[in-house]
Amino acid sequence: MTDSWVNETLYAAWGQRFRVVRELARVKSDFQDIMVFESGTHGRVMLLDGVVQITEADEFVYQEMLAHVPLLAHGAAKRVLIIGAGDGGVLRRVLQHRGVERAVMVEIDGEVIRLAKEHLPGIAGDAWTDPRAEVIVGDGIDYVKQAPAASFDVVIVDSTDPIGVGEVLFTDAFYANCARLLTGRGLVVNQCGVPFMQADELRETSVRRGRAFPDVWAYVAAVPTYVGGFMTLGWAAKDATLRAVPVEEIRRRAEAAGILGATRYWTPEIHLGAFQLPPYIADHLPRG
Amino acid sequence: MTDSWVNETLYAAWGQRFRVVRELARVKSDFQDIMVFESGTHGRVMLLDGVVQITEADEFVYQEMLAHVPLLAHGAAKRVLIIGAGDGGVLRRVLQHRGVERAVMVEIDGEVIRLAKEHLPGIAGDAWTDPRAEVIVGDGIDYVKQAPAASFDVVIVDSTDPIGVGEVLFTDAFYANCARLLTGRGLVVNQCGVPFMQADELRETSVRRGRAFPDVWAYVAAVPTYVGGFMTLGWAAKDATLRAVPVEEIRRRAEAAGILGATRYWTPEIHLGAFQLPPYIADHLPRG
Repeated sequence: MTDSWVNETLYAAWGQRFRVVRELARVKSDFQDIMVFESGTHGRVMLLDGVVQITEADEFVYQEMLAHVPLLAHGAAKRVLIIGAGDGGVLRRVLQHRGVERAVMVEIDGEVIRLAKEHLPGIAGDAWTDPRAEVIVGDGIDYVKQAPAASFDVVIVDSTDPIGVGEVLFTDAFYANCARLLTGRGLVVNQCGVPFMQADELRETSVRRGRAFPDVWAYVAAVPTYVGGFMTLGWAAKDATLRAVPVEEIRRRAEAAGILGATRYWTPEIHLGAFQLPPYIADHLPRG
Repeated sequence: MTDSWVNETLYAAWGQRFRVVRELARVKSDFQDIMVFESGTHGRVMLLDGVVQITEADEFVYQEMLAHVPLLAHGAAKRVLIIGAGDGGVLRRVLQHRGVERAVMVEIDGEVIRLAKEHLPGIAGDAWTDPRAEVIVGDGIDYVKQAPAASFDVVIVDSTDPIGVGEVLFTDAFYANCARLLTGRGLVVNQCGVPFMQADELRETSVRRGRAFPDVWAYVAAVPTYVGGFMTLGWAAKDATLRAVPVEEIRRRAEAAGILGATRYWTPEIHLGAFQLPPYIADHLPRG
């Protein structure tokens, strides 16, 4: 038996490594290097340009927090736009909500979708064929530019870090378009890295979100394979009351949506608690 | 310049690695292999038997949550017993509390203390010479066996995992002695590993704590270098009201103790929120 390891290359002098049981795919797409392998500990793992995107074992943490928190904070989201998230995991969680009528997912790299369908079928489950889902292989930047005003209630950005392919999803123009295409109580959430290692990412992108949205904050999730303690999810809303919905109302909404009891990380209490940031993270957000 | 890495050996098929800027110490004590090095990302790092114990960059998360949560939940802790924690970091955080009159620390391995004093002096700061501190190099098991009844208000166990040297700190006999030496509203907290990777550790030791204490639970902290998402801190109390103290009362106590505003991870809201466990963790606790 070979003793082969994959070392994540996100940081130059620290990182995680996985023992590889079997390599499943190694593809150079038009956008990035994609690798999928069977790990000894985390089920199957997908890397983009050497950075862990998803593992079968811990994807539930990230997906639940990225999908359920904005949808239940909004309370009546019918139309949801997902940018990135080519593995289909966010799409699946969004479609779990009974009230969602339409979920559009725009992923730039069709190879990510193809490899996820082939090697990580459990991540998206039946989401690919749900009649409410529209999956577009295309540029999220173009999509938000052309989307009609007030055409979505929630935007979820599940991108790589603001380097490489994902960089354009963190610009002033992108957030301005999100604000335009969102309805009156609309909000956008996006992954903002692990502030213990990447504090600049949270700080700089929060400033940009603040130019397009009146309420800018972040919430946290402890994702096992996004190593470095809490990762932050960026929060930009038109209505500042959305992150202060009482816990009992969140529970009621989750029950109505069909989410309550169907999660392994998200709970109504964790939903509310996630907005309470440790000072070492809050210090990087613009003063309100 | 050499390109030298340390791979943590806690798990056989997954783990973190650090680029080593300079090795500072490598000692075989009577109990374990101790290594201290300067990392490229986390300041200085100490490993015991190949497992990361502490880094200068993120020690604040673990120390604050291990010390401040039990002391402020108790509300009037004067006498605190610390088992392990040879780096002195917990001792320093305990002594920050104005109301603490005596802190006894019992560390089995004098070499850990010596190397921490030499290479990680900032971790303990002035705690070693605080007149309220008593530092004993000795066996925590013997200490709790011989300690008089009702002689401490809080016990903090900062041990390695329940394998190797630390194993005896997770037995029925140990917890029974803790219950005996604690005062009427006393409680013990202890590190319980990262349940995403080590769920057995939380489950099995919680059952044992339940044989000696009426209120057994856990609380979480996202410690960057205890990789794998949340780590759990075990909670065993004689009084079940201690983990439900209202947030405003926790804030008042923290202000009186001199803790409020002096932390980088702990806040009154995070204190309360830490007891809200994701289902994937709560499922490993005994049903109440």
